[in-house]
Amino acid sequence: MSKGDETKVAILDEALQIASRVGFNALSIGGLAERTEMSKGGLFAHFRSKEALQLQTLEHSRTRFIDQVIRPTLNAPRGVRRLRELFARWLDWETSALDGGCIFITASAEYDSQPGAMRDALVRNQEDWLDTIATVADTAVAEGEFRPDVDTRQLAFELHGLMLGFHHSGRLLEDPLALDRTRTAFESMLDARLA
Amino acid sequence: MSKGDETKVAILDEALQIASRVGFNALSIGGLAERTEMSKGGLFAHFRSKEALQLQTLEHSRTRFIDQVIRPTLNAPRGVRRLRELFARWLDWETSALDGGCIFITASAEYDSQPGAMRDALVRNQEDWLDTIATVADTAVAEGEFRPDVDTRQLAFELHGLMLGFHHSGRLLEDPLALDRTRTAFESMLDARLA
Repeated sequence: MSKGDETKVAILDEALQIASRVGFNALSIGGLAERTEMSKGGLFAHFRSKEALQLQTLEHSRTRFIDQVIRPTLNAPRGVRRLRELFARWLDWETSALDGGCIFITASAEYDSQPGAMRDALVRNQEDWLDTIATVADTAVAEGEFRPDVDTRQLAFELHGLMLGFHHSGRLLEDPLALDRTRTAFESMLDARLA
Repeated sequence: MSKGDETKVAILDEALQIASRVGFNALSIGGLAERTEMSKGGLFAHFRSKEALQLQTLEHSRTRFIDQVIRPTLNAPRGVRRLRELFARWLDWETSALDGGCIFITASAEYDSQPGAMRDALVRNQEDWLDTIATVADTAVAEGEFRPDVDTRQLAFELHGLMLGFHHSGRLLEDPLALDRTRTAFESMLDARLA
């Protein structure tokens, strides 16, 4: 990685932390300049506009998510074990990767009724993620661990809602049982589908 | 209701619509003045501060939610029928009551890492709501429709996540299957608990 690329990654890491705490709408070149102690002019040369900064930060979070959640999951054995690995890594992402929890949950709330390039990029991202969950669950069907009639898109939808519930319960309500409840629900969702 | 009270309710209805579309953080006395064609001075006399406006709008949404969801639910027969009524009315609230969907979902995303009076009020509100869901589910245990060992707080947690998933899938992804998937998941959650 070139020196310029390293600098940009470091800036985007900081932008990601800001967005996770206060949202993408509050992410600005000025605010980022304060946090990184770089000049606004220097950052403007990198990003050109607030929207470009937001889009590149979202893209950067996608790269991080693929590295931390998706890629290592695909090394796990196909089937229920892989689905467990996926969910465990996704939980880690929500609890540990960023100060404000899953950045895609934050962005989803911000952009659900705010049209534009950010919303479009986020929708593609979230659809890809639901496809990925379903594809991993498909391996449990193919391996004969799940019943052949399991609707894996339905499971992906339910797992996504569960993670949103965990974020709500853990972050807003600070419920000490949030993680236990989430794991219990995850196990019920698997059990209901076993062959 | 006095003329003054009627005016205030009309103002708070408008504030609620604004908050549902753009969030509570973007709700201001100035913005509300534009929408209601009232003077900023007149609105300031009602609310005194942006935070007071936000808090009263949140309280107003609680009143609306009790009227539209909770109170009529309690007229349904105890047990699974009451729980179905609750969920159906909650779905209506999310889809039809306000332009931007459930205002508590919007607020939860805004305040989960933003301390203050709004967050405190919202947390109390959401804890009360989870208690209400569990209490309604308790009637299904008491009537012998659910197994006696059912953890109704766990069910409340799962139903809440499901509604968050419906909001995400319906509002952000505009998935035409969002409602079907939500109803399917609801039925599975009930089935898994039947005596």
